[in-house]
Amino acid sequence: MAKVKLNDGLRRLREDYVFSEVAAKIAAFEETHPGRRVIRLGIGDVTLPLGQSVVSAMRVAVDEMSRRSGFRGYAPEGGYDFLRRAVSDAYAARGVAVAPEEVFVSDGSKSDQGNVLELFGDAPAYLPDPVYPAYRDANLIAGREVRPLYAGRENGFLPAPDQCAAEPALIYVCSPNNPTGAVCDRAALTAWVEHALHTGSVILFDAAYEAFASPGVPRSVFEIPGARGCAIEFSSLSKSAGFTGTRCAWTVIPRELECAGTSLGALWRRRRAAKFNGVAYVVQRGAEAALSPRGREECRERIAYYKENRALLARVLSEKGVYVAPGEDSPYLWFEIPGRGDSREYFDSLLSRYGVAGTPGAGFGKNGEGYFRLSAFASREDVLEGARRIREGR
Amino acid sequence: MAKVKLNDGLRRLREDYVFSEVAAKIAAFEETHPGRRVIRLGIGDVTLPLGQSVVSAMRVAVDEMSRRSGFRGYAPEGGYDFLRRAVSDAYAARGVAVAPEEVFVSDGSKSDQGNVLELFGDAPAYLPDPVYPAYRDANLIAGREVRPLYAGRENGFLPAPDQCAAEPALIYVCSPNNPTGAVCDRAALTAWVEHALHTGSVILFDAAYEAFASPGVPRSVFEIPGARGCAIEFSSLSKSAGFTGTRCAWTVIPRELECAGTSLGALWRRRRAAKFNGVAYVVQRGAEAALSPRGREECRERIAYYKENRALLARVLSEKGVYVAPGEDSPYLWFEIPGRGDSREYFDSLLSRYGVAGTPGAGFGKNGEGYFRLSAFASREDVLEGARRIREGR
Repeated sequence: MAKVKLNDGLRRLREDYVFSEVAAKIAAFEETHPGRRVIRLGIGDVTLPLGQSVVSAMRVAVDEMSRRSGFRGYAPEGGYDFLRRAVSDAYAARGVAVAPEEVFVSDGSKSDQGNVLELFGDAPAYLPDPVYPAYRDANLIAGREVRPLYAGRENGFLPAPDQCAAEPALIYVCSPNNPTGAVCDRAALTAWVEHALHTGSVILFDAAYEAFASPGVPRSVFEIPGARGCAIEFSSLSKSAGFTGTRCAWTVIPRELECAGTSLGALWRRRRAAKFNGVAYVVQRGAEAALSPRGREECRERIAYYKENRALLARVLSEKGVYVAPGEDSPYLWFEIPGRGDSREYFDSLLSRYGVAGTPGAGFGKNGEGYFRLSAFASREDVLEGARRIREGR
Repeated sequence: MAKVKLNDGLRRLREDYVFSEVAAKIAAFEETHPGRRVIRLGIGDVTLPLGQSVVSAMRVAVDEMSRRSGFRGYAPEGGYDFLRRAVSDAYAARGVAVAPEEVFVSDGSKSDQGNVLELFGDAPAYLPDPVYPAYRDANLIAGREVRPLYAGRENGFLPAPDQCAAEPALIYVCSPNNPTGAVCDRAALTAWVEHALHTGSVILFDAAYEAFASPGVPRSVFEIPGARGCAIEFSSLSKSAGFTGTRCAWTVIPRELECAGTSLGALWRRRRAAKFNGVAYVVQRGAEAALSPRGREECRERIAYYKENRALLARVLSEKGVYVAPGEDSPYLWFEIPGRGDSREYFDSLLSRYGVAGTPGAGFGKNGEGYFRLSAFASREDVLEGARRIREGR
């Protein structure tokens, strides 16, 4: 047996990464109930296929890779210019100025949200609770002090800066929010930006669900004046363009963002050179296509479909008198378990009684207890069947 | 300006990641010498296109992703079974037992060689010098103590365990070696395994160049008895199947490998769940094809081509009386600069006199000074032209 010391932060992580735990429970249920089709509304994984514009671009790129003249080896640091420009253009179309050089193409927001912690030394991280568990896990692995920010029905599931000490910290903001579906309006985001500028903090803004935001809801932290001096933004094609199995995302670090006179963008470039080799050319071409006018139209159709799924499920739950948190700008339903019951027990009962799998709120943090999350990323058929089972109680 | 403390380890990294530095110098040269075509023998980036088996498999996978029935979202943790089995089979074909569950599919060896450090607490890391700079950088970013192991002409560019203290440590072994091309024979690898077992150390074995090894040269650390109790292996399709721009690799953590009673494989699964979402389905299908009988035949042809490139360059240098380190099992030429001169100056003179770009040995560490690396991954045309310029002195 090896005797090298282990990383205590990693060892202390709960064994049960919530989505792994849920997957195991579903697998066990299916084994013991072979005749019962499970309606999966748990993990936030998309079901609609890639758009035709994406598929066409990937086909062309595969062909290029098969010929000497079109073959591409290591991608340029930061990602291909064509994709960084496409991202910059997509921001510009929404009135937000992000230069291509400020865009860093990655294999996923989860990866980068964890990896970006390597930029920083000792500083606490403020995380909402409930929260996307990967933020918390990455901070614990890094040995960083994690401070929860209360999010509950009482504050509209939106923590505000008054919960933070007046000191430099990393502050996670996710809007539209996973798991609660809550959105920061302009005033709420402005309060965060002002707090960060005042305290010398850095906001880590998770925009993974920005494409679900209705008109008027901020989709980028950089819509807020001053944010370029205090925020890093993580965006992704996973939920908008169906890239959960294709893997392309990007991180924006504005040129102005500095700590101790050091450009965070320059530091991030150096970190990437040491520990990352970029995203497949074929995938970057697919991502470029997803951001084209036709690609964006395909994304809009996909999002409308998932939002309609959510509305169908929300209606059934509301009809049964369940409190569903406002979440029209998200693909998630966050609802109160009747009597604020134990969310793991509720998971088990929903699965055994209705054959419907969701995610127990406790998996997202202490304040998630008493709540439950359903994902609307399933097929319409499954959503209708799940809604029927819940409505009819069987 | 933000006031969050920065990671001192990252800040202290040399600005000049060697390959970034070299790329910048070449770009500057090209701008000032528009008529001169630069022969690029610097970064180890492949030039032959993807094999037809890989291309066919990726085309089919893109089509699947375009249809609801074939669409895939998040990949299973650890990678798709089809690829983990293909990797396991490829090991089995060489007489090495690696179970599919011990294989973790990643986007690149460089990523995983850095990320795997998160498994461990305080322990020194022994790195050869000269060394692939990414190992060193990842350890410095992690704040880990780095101890160099001397590699030079005197020891055949192969450090041995007698340079290490008798205490638990992380030990990097890369064979065939980048940058020197040296290979560990069975006896050398056995010595490392015995040392690791004796001291409770963990060997991080970089097998990125295993496909270049001649018959008889170990291609996996797991060919050595006992290695399953003390080693993690990193393998990659970048150099064998031309995946530098397609991104697929794997890490093997044997079931038996434990620290303090904890399975490193289980810990790694947990780390991946927190900070990684796997590799694109389309890419994993391409990787599977690269490991098929036809794919392996295509890899062998590609490797023979690059090895012939190397032989051509080695001949020219030897004819000029230059000492070229033995490296027939690698795509690299590691040679002594005449008079053991300054390697950055030599880079500049090679570029300005011959229009040939290589990599200064100093970029790989203190002991790399006085040496120079040429990569044989260029096209045959470029290699012949580079050889001609060096032979004719213009």
